[in-house]
Order: sequence, then C-alpha cells, then structure tokens
Amino acid sequence: MGLPVPDSRTDNSLPAAWPRLAATGVDSEFLAWFAERTTATHCRTDRIPLTDLRGWSFDDATGNLRHESGRFFVVEGLQVRTSYGQVPEWSQPIINQPEIGFLGLLVKEVDGVLHCLVQAKMEPGNVNPVQLAPTIQATRSNYTRVHRGSSTRYLDYFLHPQGRRVLVDVLQSEQGSWFHRKRNRNIVIQVTEDVPVAEDHHWLSLGEIGRLLRVDGLVNMDTRTVLSCLPLTALYDRAAGRCERAPTALTRSLTAEDGACHDLSDVLSWFTHAKSRYEMATNRIPLNQVRGWHRTRDEIAHDEGRHFSIIGVSVHASSREVISWDQPILYPKGQGVVAFLIKSIGGVAHLLVQARFQAGLVDGIEMGPTVQCHRDNYPLGPPRFLDEVLNAPAERILFDTVLPEEGGRFYHAANRYMLVEVDDDFPVGVPEDFCWVTRRQLIELLRHSYYLNVEARSLMACLQSL
Amino acid sequence: MGLPVPDSRTDNSLPAAWPRLAATGVDSEFLAWFAERTTATHCRTDRIPLTDLRGWSFDDATGNLRHESGRFFVVEGLQVRTSYGQVPEWSQPIINQPEIGFLGLLVKEVDGVLHCLVQAKMEPGNVNPVQLAPTIQATRSNYTRVHRGSSTRYLDYFLHPQGRRVLVDVLQSEQGSWFHRKRNRNIVIQVTEDVPVAEDHHWLSLGEIGRLLRVDGLVNMDTRTVLSCLPLTALYDRAAGRCERAPTALTRSLTAEDGACHDLSDVLSWFTHAKSRYEMATNRIPLNQVRGWHRTRDEIAHDEGRHFSIIGVSVHASSREVISWDQPILYPKGQGVVAFLIKSIGGVAHLLVQARFQAGLVDGIEMGPTVQCHRDNYPLGPPRFLDEVLNAPAERILFDTVLPEEGGRFYHAANRYMLVEVDDDFPVGVPEDFCWVTRRQLIELLRHSYYLNVEARSLMACLQSL
Repeated sequence: MGLPVPDSRTDNSLPAAWPRLAATGVDSEFLAWFAERTTATHCRTDRIPLTDLRGWSFDDATGNLRHESGRFFVVEGLQVRTSYGQVPEWSQPIINQPEIGFLGLLVKEVDGVLHCLVQAKMEPGNVNPVQLAPTIQATRSNYTRVHRGSSTRYLDYFLHPQGRRVLVDVLQSEQGSWFHRKRNRNIVIQVTEDVPVAEDHHWLSLGEIGRLLRVDGLVNMDTRTVLSCLPLTALYDRAAGRCERAPTALTRSLTAEDGACHDLSDVLSWFTHAKSRYEMATNRIPLNQVRGWHRTRDEIAHDEGRHFSIIGVSVHASSREVISWDQPILYPKGQGVVAFLIKSIGGVAHLLVQARFQAGLVDGIEMGPTVQCHRDNYPLGPPRFLDEVLNAPAERILFDTVLPEEGGRFYHAANRYMLVEVDDDFPVGVPEDFCWVTRRQLIELLRHSYYLNVEARSLMACLQSL
Repeated sequence: MGLPVPDSRTDNSLPAAWPRLAATGVDSEFLAWFAERTTATHCRTDRIPLTDLRGWSFDDATGNLRHESGRFFVVEGLQVRTSYGQVPEWSQPIINQPEIGFLGLLVKEVDGVLHCLVQAKMEPGNVNPVQLAPTIQATRSNYTRVHRGSSTRYLDYFLHPQGRRVLVDVLQSEQGSWFHRKRNRNIVIQVTEDVPVAEDHHWLSLGEIGRLLRVDGLVNMDTRTVLSCLPLTALYDRAAGRCERAPTALTRSLTAEDGACHDLSDVLSWFTHAKSRYEMATNRIPLNQVRGWHRTRDEIAHDEGRHFSIIGVSVHASSREVISWDQPILYPKGQGVVAFLIKSIGGVAHLLVQARFQAGLVDGIEMGPTVQCHRDNYPLGPPRFLDEVLNAPAERILFDTVLPEEGGRFYHAANRYMLVEVDDDFPVGVPEDFCWVTRRQLIELLRHSYYLNVEARSLMACLQSL
C-alpha cells in the first residue's frame, strides 16, 4: 500500500532501553516478570488507509471520522481565535472523546512502604511493546464493553471503593492540543487486604517506580499522571527509598515545608488573571471545514507537514481485551521538549510554571511546565527559556528521560522530559505568564481539577524520582 | 405595540421593601444615601420588539441574535443529551458571553471591622430601580469601552492590585441553564489607604450587609457571589457584628472547627464520581435549529410557555456608563425556590449539597443547593426535598428572602432563598447525588473555580447573615 511511516511492526522484542532498565537496581523478580510479559505479548500494528478502517467511516455531511457505534472517539474540527501566543486564529483536527475513563491505581502499605499495583500493558501506539500502566486504565467504552472484550480486571475496587481509603479522586485534563476537553478520573485506592495479582500485574514500591521513570519509554503517561496526584507527600517521601544520587541541597529543599515566594492566594490570583487576560474562543466545526489541512486516503495532514497527522492502524494483539481492531491514531511530528526550570529561592526550590493556553483544555488555560514545545511548530522563533533548558551544563540537569505519551490514541508520541536547575543569577522576576511555585503548592493544587496540564503532571511524577 | 408583560416602567420610586429596609437597623447615613441614589436614578425600561433593537439583529444563516459589534453576548442554541435527570435530550436558546468580567469588591478594615465599598447600581432587569452591587461590576466590553461610555470607576484597583492584599481572585460560573460557560472573576482587594468615595458608592460593614441580605430584592447577585468567596472566615466571623436573633446551637455550630462527617477527600471523590457517572454531551447549535421553541417579532419562547423567553428592552438611564441602549434580555417564567437543608450531625451543622448538572456549566456539574427549582419546569413531579423545604415549620426557617438574579441579562428574575433546619429524625443517609458538607469545607472549595454554582454561592452569603 506504500504507506511510508510508521512501519508495520511485530513486537515481542525487549525494549531498547533494557540495559538501562537492568541498571536501575529494581529487584530481579520485577525484571523477570517484565521480560516475561514483554515476550509473551504478541502484538502487531500495521498502518492501513483511513478508508479501510473496519467500523470507522467519514461522515458524509461533516467529514468527521467516527466509529459506527457512536462511541470511542471522533476526529472532528476545532476553530480557534485567541490573543494568546503567536498565531491569532487557526483551525485544526482534534480528537473528541467526551466520556470519562478511569486511570486507577491500587496501593498498599507493606512494611511501611507504599506499593503500587502496576500493569504491563500493550497499546497500539507504543514504541516498546509494553509499558508500565496503572492498575486499570479504562474508558467507559472499555468497561461497559462496547467492543465486547473481556471484563476489566480490578474495576470493582474503583467502582465500589466503599470501606477503603480513597487517597485521591480527581478529574484531570489530557493533551490540550490534541484532545477536545478530554478528562480522565485519576484515582488511587488504598487497600489493606490481600489482592489477587493477575499475570499482567505486579507490585512495585514508589521508590522502584521512581527509578524506573528514568528509563526511556517505560513508565506510561497514565501512571505518571496518577502518581502526580498522590497527595501523601510525607508518606511518599518516606517511601521513596534509596536515591540514585546523593540528595543535593536543592533536592532536599523540594520538600521544604514553607518559604514559598508567593502565597497560594497570590498564585491563584496570578492564574485567574492569566485566564482573564486573553481572548480564547473555540468552536467545534466539521472536519471538512478545517483550513490548512488536507485529507487523503491514508492520512489527515497539515499542508506544511507540521504538528501531526491522523493515520489508520490495524492492531492484532494477544494481551488486550479485544485481540484485533482497527482505529485512527494521532501521529505527532517529532519529539517535543518538556521541562521545568528549578531555582532555589530563599533556600526553597521553586518550579517555574507557565500559564498556558491550549485550545482543547476545559477552561482554556492550565499551568504547564516552563517549556513545552515541538521546535518545528514555532516558525517565529524558539519559545522562551528553551535555550536555557537545552544549553544547561550536565551537572544542572536533574532529570532527562524520553517518556511516552498515551499509546491508545497517539502513535509513537514521546517527549524529552527534563528538570533543570538554573544558576544563581537567573532572575526571580519573570514574564507575566510565568510564576515561581513550590512543589508543595503544586501538590495542594493537584487535589483539584484543571490546574496542572498533563505535561506538568508528568514532570511532577519525575520530580518524585529525585 | 401590544406587548403584555413586562410593563414599561418609570422608576424612581423607593423599593417596596423599604419599610423592611429601615427596620434592619443599618445606620441612617446609609438609609439617606440609598434613598438619595434611588430617587436620583432616572431610568426607564420599555419592552420593544426584538426586531426593533438598535444594534442587534438575527443572523440570516443561524438565526442567532447578536450585536453588530460582535461583542456583548449572543443568543444562540444549545443541544443537550444527558443521562442526568428526567429529560434525556433537549435543545434550548442560551446566552453565550465568552468574555470574563470583574465582580470586584474593595474592602477595608476600620476599627477592626471589615467594610465593603458597595455601589447603588441600576440594571435594566431590576425590579427595584437600584440594588446594592459590588464596587465594580464590569464586563470586558464595559471597561474596554465598546459602547463608548464613561470609564469604569475603581477599575485600576483590580487591574493593578500590586502592593495590596488580594483576599480572593477566582473564576466562578453563573446560571448554567441560561448561560453557556459564562464565568466571572470574583475578586476582593483589601486596601489600607483612603479611597475616594463616589456618589454611587458607600462603605458598609459585613454585618450591615448581612442584615441587608434579609431585605427582598436589595443585595444583588454579584455582591452575593463575591461575598461568598471571601475566605477570611475568622475575620468575617469577628466582623459580622450583632445578629438579629440570638445565636442558636445550630448557628453556632456552623463555625465549628471540625467534625465534618466526610473528609474533604471524600467530598471531592463524591463530586468526581458524580461527574463521571452521567453522560453529559452539549453542543452549540444555531438558534434556528432549536426545537420546541419559536420566535416571533416580540420574543423567543418555549412552545409550552415554560422555562423563559428572550424579549427586547430599550433602556434610558442617567446613572450608567451609557444613557440609552437596547438589548435582548432573558425573562424567566415565575420565581424559583433555592434552599439548603441544614442538619446538625455530631454537633456540627452540615449543609446538604447536590451534584447538579446544568447544560451551560463549564464542566457540566457543580454543587448546588439541596433544592433549586422552578416548580413548573418539572412535569414529572416536584424535585426531591422541595416538600421538606416548603412545609418546614416557621421556627426551622433560618432565612427566607426573595433575592434578585443578575439584572443586566435577566428581566425581573428572582428566587426565594431559604435556609431550613431539618428535624433530628431527618436521615443522615441521602441519595447518591447528595452529600452533607460543612460550611468550612465549602469555604475551602470556594477558593477554587466551579465547585459551587451561583445559587449555592448566594446561599453561602445568606448563611453569613445568620
């Protein structure tokens, strides 16, 4: 069929990062289990023309790409007009998936250390065949069994948590440039009883997950966002176990009790002001009214080859609810950079957050990392602070790992996640879309919806690994 | 022209509630000022056909009613499909006003008592000619002077609060059945310096405002929502001054420090679960595709005469930025009932909140009062707990006042706001859309957007008056 990228793929090889994985020092039982799940997972993802997708078709009137059941998701259009950023007006394809899914994690304290029940999970967009996912990761379509697969294991713990401790239960956004108002339920349930461990599942301590976060392409996005919402700072700190490097003054100061340079009230006011300052009008439109993009048999793509394309894949797998299905999937152009600059202010580490508009976010603006970009998408020059991130000397780079985005909707999507300490003469005064906040302030905000975008939440999970 | 209701009106009469106003015991200086502002306000609101509105017209393609400048607001259509409530699917006219306005209050401590700078403000939809408004109440169109009126007084305090204490600054929703995703910036700035007092403005203590809240039709919606967001419980309690009635065990227990029957985490989980449980799909549609409603020269109305109509008014006023303008305005059918049931649980007063879907809310569901209804709009029977509210014996009715909704967009809209204590055998167990929460928990949530809907926020302000 002559579809050039991405390749078809038969995958039961071990991840390329395997040597780094073995070097993390996680226990051999985990390594054996993960190797076994990887080789046992037979999956194949073939690229096929959009017009050949079984169960999917383009609506005659709107051009929207949708499933015959009306469920799962729809690829439609979004019209955007905003005074934020370099481009005042555009339209684009966007994924509309209105249903709320579960990103659920079971945790249990064993010998005073919090352990999480993770899952080795295959998704069609993964580079590595399987990644570490939360205990459950289920859209409503999954668990109400629209595609008639097997039932979702462990779902009952989350549907009926009565009598167990709910550590966090909050709706959070996902990629605001690719999804229209998508949100998932990030939920962590603490159990005290024995829980049967299925073959795809394994208990890992928070400290072990922290070390695994430093392996390229291993810990999936859903695990990162659920972990970031865990509110038990004290418990987390206690449980984080041994570090790969000795704590520096900076990493110690991440957990300082107070000394934030802005009160939380001021941070909230800064955020409200940012939301009020910009015009941000979005409007769902039919896909066939999107301008600057074109549709062929094989893809929906940007006329200048930027941003992303929508392609079709046919999936055959042995370790999922349904063993064979077709779907459209979003294929981003290139790898992005997602980074927090970190600065010690008055002896307390502060992260530089950015009030960031993304057209698909529920309320338009959330707090993002200092830098969050695909370089090619900024024709008018690199975004602010990108140079500081990319040119930082090695000793100031606290974290630097390529981590995958959601493999169920995105094909081979990954970003380079970085935590970078700035030097002392980096100014405290920053442009008005930016604000210095402490980790504890962000943890407090993560109890609530729509403060931190998914990239910032991923980095919050990475921060726990320091 | 034969437009039957509402009447044209020449208004510089004192409010019908004047005797009750004088009986509140607020100081005579206030009474003199308010009487003076009322008689000095010359305003006249005439109903005119929609097709005669200067500057407004129906779009040929969509039928949407919009201003020629593209600003202010648009009356358009909304299509709703939901598994919440009695009606699974409908369409309706809705007001789309995407810009964020200021509801701003200046406060100042005088002799240890917090005072608020209120404004006597005329709005075309008011029943009384003027109501008590916050210090400023300005849409972006107002203060960027789209209609070329005079500049908004005091705006600078809110646009540039630097150096002053920002007590709260948060986006909150407005009527979710009438507005599409409307939100305003509720902001309170504390000043220490002298502030010039304009003739429309007056300082009142929080205690005085609390007493004035018991006067029908006096304290406007915007004042109530800003006041409800004031986080300074302790300061508020101290400043609230003398009460009209001796505090009962129940009213004392409203300020109890702890003893909530659900942890805040559990309340948040209950709220997240409610948002996840229902399908709530809304879609903006052209006004001419709304079904079950019709448009005449004079109004856009429901075919069975329910809910509301959109009518046209021509306004002539002497105490507003612009002295004459026309606009469409939403005219609701009848008066609603908005009430919290309150129960002492373990010696601590709890309010019964309801997770309530309203199609225009940003995230679909917010926490509303126990009862919030227009009786005529429930063809299948009265909503839950309405009987308990309406049949409560007098000694259990803690608050009962008819308060106006926003007079800039709604014509003669008012609800009967009630706080009702239930008797001891009222069950603690409630249906899953309901939850008992304490006042302190709600105050904590009011720091954040989109937890409490505008009716619940109004009642929170009323609660302060007890």
